[in-house]
Amino acid sequence: MSEISYKDAGVDLGKIKQSHNKIAKALAETFTFRKGKLGEPVTKIGHYAGLVDIGDRYLALHSDGVGTKVLIAQMMNKYDTVGIDCVAMNVNDLICIGAEPAGLIDYIALEKTNPELIDELMKGLIKGAKESGIAIVGGETAIMPDVIKGYREGYGFDLAAASYGFVDKDEVITGSTIKEGDILIGLESSGIHSNGYSLVRKVIFEKAGLTVDDTFPETNKKVGEILLEPTRIYTKIIRKLIHVITVHGIAHITGGAFTKLMRIAPDGLGFEIHLPEPPTVFKVIQKLGNISDKEMYKTFNMGIGMVLVIPEEEKGKLFKVMDNYCIKAYEIGKIIREPTVRVNGIKLV
Amino acid sequence: MSEISYKDAGVDLGKIKQSHNKIAKALAETFTFRKGKLGEPVTKIGHYAGLVDIGDRYLALHSDGVGTKVLIAQMMNKYDTVGIDCVAMNVNDLICIGAEPAGLIDYIALEKTNPELIDELMKGLIKGAKESGIAIVGGETAIMPDVIKGYREGYGFDLAAASYGFVDKDEVITGSTIKEGDILIGLESSGIHSNGYSLVRKVIFEKAGLTVDDTFPETNKKVGEILLEPTRIYTKIIRKLIHVITVHGIAHITGGAFTKLMRIAPDGLGFEIHLPEPPTVFKVIQKLGNISDKEMYKTFNMGIGMVLVIPEEEKGKLFKVMDNYCIKAYEIGKIIREPTVRVNGIKLV
Repeated sequence: MSEISYKDAGVDLGKIKQSHNKIAKALAETFTFRKGKLGEPVTKIGHYAGLVDIGDRYLALHSDGVGTKVLIAQMMNKYDTVGIDCVAMNVNDLICIGAEPAGLIDYIALEKTNPELIDELMKGLIKGAKESGIAIVGGETAIMPDVIKGYREGYGFDLAAASYGFVDKDEVITGSTIKEGDILIGLESSGIHSNGYSLVRKVIFEKAGLTVDDTFPETNKKVGEILLEPTRIYTKIIRKLIHVITVHGIAHITGGAFTKLMRIAPDGLGFEIHLPEPPTVFKVIQKLGNISDKEMYKTFNMGIGMVLVIPEEEKGKLFKVMDNYCIKAYEIGKIIREPTVRVNGIKLV
Repeated sequence: MSEISYKDAGVDLGKIKQSHNKIAKALAETFTFRKGKLGEPVTKIGHYAGLVDIGDRYLALHSDGVGTKVLIAQMMNKYDTVGIDCVAMNVNDLICIGAEPAGLIDYIALEKTNPELIDELMKGLIKGAKESGIAIVGGETAIMPDVIKGYREGYGFDLAAASYGFVDKDEVITGSTIKEGDILIGLESSGIHSNGYSLVRKVIFEKAGLTVDDTFPETNKKVGEILLEPTRIYTKIIRKLIHVITVHGIAHITGGAFTKLMRIAPDGLGFEIHLPEPPTVFKVIQKLGNISDKEMYKTFNMGIGMVLVIPEEEKGKLFKVMDNYCIKAYEIGKIIREPTVRVNGIKLV
C-alpha cells in the first residue's frame, strides 16, 4: 500500500514555508510606510497575529479561512457550521498573542449568486461570534464565476475572514519568556478542526472510497458528521487562564500542526512532546492512508487544539481552573534546550 | 444584436442587494456581543466601512477583493499590478468614511502552491501600500485545490484583503450633513478599476472574440493593457481635501457603480448627475456589448472613480487644491430633494 503525504494531496508545506519567509521579508518593508504614525506595526510578520501600536494599547490583526473543509459542507449540503470554523480559525490565533478578540470581517467568494447559501454561512459566523464574544462589523461577498468552483453545482464557495482584537502593552504573550523546563499543556481539540482537509479528502474519499453517508470506520457516526465537526473556540478558557496563572507561550495547532510551535520558541529552545492516545478519527485516517507518524504530526492536531507553555509550578492552579470548563487538558511535555520539535520521539523540525 | 447585462454575466445585483440587507440585519445581532466593551461597533452595516469605538477615536474596518480581474492577469500572465487594485479597493472605501487608512491584511487563495505567483502579487500589494501610506501587517495564503480555478493552469488565484484605518470621532464623514443644493465633484478614474469584469470579459472575449493581445478598438493599446490598468488610489488627494475644505459626503464608485450613492444620502435627498464624455474604454464596451445606458451606469464608473459632495461655496477652493494633484476633477451634478440617483436623465434607483 503506497504512503500518502500532504504534498501528494497538492499542498507542499516546505515550499510554502520558503514562500512565507520571502513574503515576511517583503512585507517588513511596508512597516516603514507607517513609521512614527498611528498604527505602526510592532511585531515581525510570522507570529499568530500582527500587532500595531494604537497609543495606549496594541491592535492585533489576523486573517484565516476554512480551507477545503468548504467541500465537505457541499458534500453534506450543510452550510451552517463552517462559519463557526471560520471564526475559530481567527480567534484561536488572536488569543495566542494574548489579545482579546473583538471583531471580524468576513470574506465570501461564490461561484454564483446564492442568497440561501450565504444565509446558512452567516448562521455559523454568528454562532461563532457569540461564543467568542466578537462583533462582525462588515464583510465582502464576491461573485466569482470562473474563479470559484466546488463539489456541488452552484454551491462553490470560499470562506475566510480577517479579525482583530486588543491587548494591553504589558500583556502581550509572544513566547519570549519561555524557559527550559517549562511544561506543555495540551487542550483537547474537537476533531480535525480546519486543517489538512486536502489530505483527509484524498484518503477518505479517493483512497478508501467512502462517501459522507457511510459510517466512519471504528465509530457509529457518519463520515460527513465527523469531517464537518466545527473547530473548537478556545477564547474563553484561554482569556480566563492568562488572567489567573502565568502563561509563557500559547500556540494554536493549525496549518503545519506541531511544526509551527517553533515560532513561539526563544532561540536555542524547543519542544519535547508526548501525545496522549489520539482520537479515533486520526487513527483511522492514518491507517486508511498508510500515513507515517511524522506526516501525521506535521499535518493534524492529533487531538490537541492548543498548546500552552507554563512554568511547572503553575500546573496545579491550571488544572483547577480547567475543571470549571468542558475542555480536557493534558500535560504533554516540556521545553528543552535544543531548537527542535520532537513528538513521540520523532523530530519534526 | 442581443443586449448583454451584468445579470447575464452571472452577477445578479438585485438579488445581491436583497441578500446584503438580510446579512446586515443578521450581523447587527453580533454588535450586542461587544456592547459596552472595547471595540463596540458604532455604525450600521452597509456603509463603506465599519466603525468601532476604541476610546479616543474610531477604528474603521473594511474588506474587498479584486474580483474576476484576476483572470485578466492570468490571460496576460502578468501578476504584479492586481495587488495595487487590491489595496485601492480597500483604501478607497476606507477614506469614504473620513478615515486615514493605516494597514491591510491580504488573503490569497491559490489553486496550487506557486511561490512565483505570490511574489508577483506581493509586488503590487507593496506598491499600493506605499502609495497609500499603509502597512501590510499579515496575510493568509490558502492552497485550495478543488475550490480555486483560473484561466491559466496552475495560476488560478483569488486576491482579497481586509483593511483598517483610524478616524477622530469628530471627523467621521457619513453623508449625514449632505444638503439639497450641494454640488457633486467627480474625480477621474484610471479605467475600469476592479468592478464589472464578468461583464467586460463576456463582451470583449466571448461576444467580440478579441484576445488580450489584440488592439483595443479605437485605441492604440492592447486589450490586456487596458483591462489590467490598476485602480487609482485616492487616499492622498481625499485626505488633503477633507482637511482644507468642508466635505459632506464621499463615495467610491465601486460594485453597483452609481446606484450605491444612495447609501450616503440623508432621507429624502438624492443625486442628479450629468457625466462628462466617458473614456473610450466604456464607449467601446457599450457598443460591442450593445449594453443600455442604464446598465452601464449601474455597472461601471464611466470615468469617475470617486464622487465628493460639497457645499457650492467650497468649489473654488477645491479646484485650487486639485490643481496640485495629477487627478482631474469635474463638477458632475447636485443634490436634489428626491430620493433617487439620476444619471444623464436616467433614473437608476
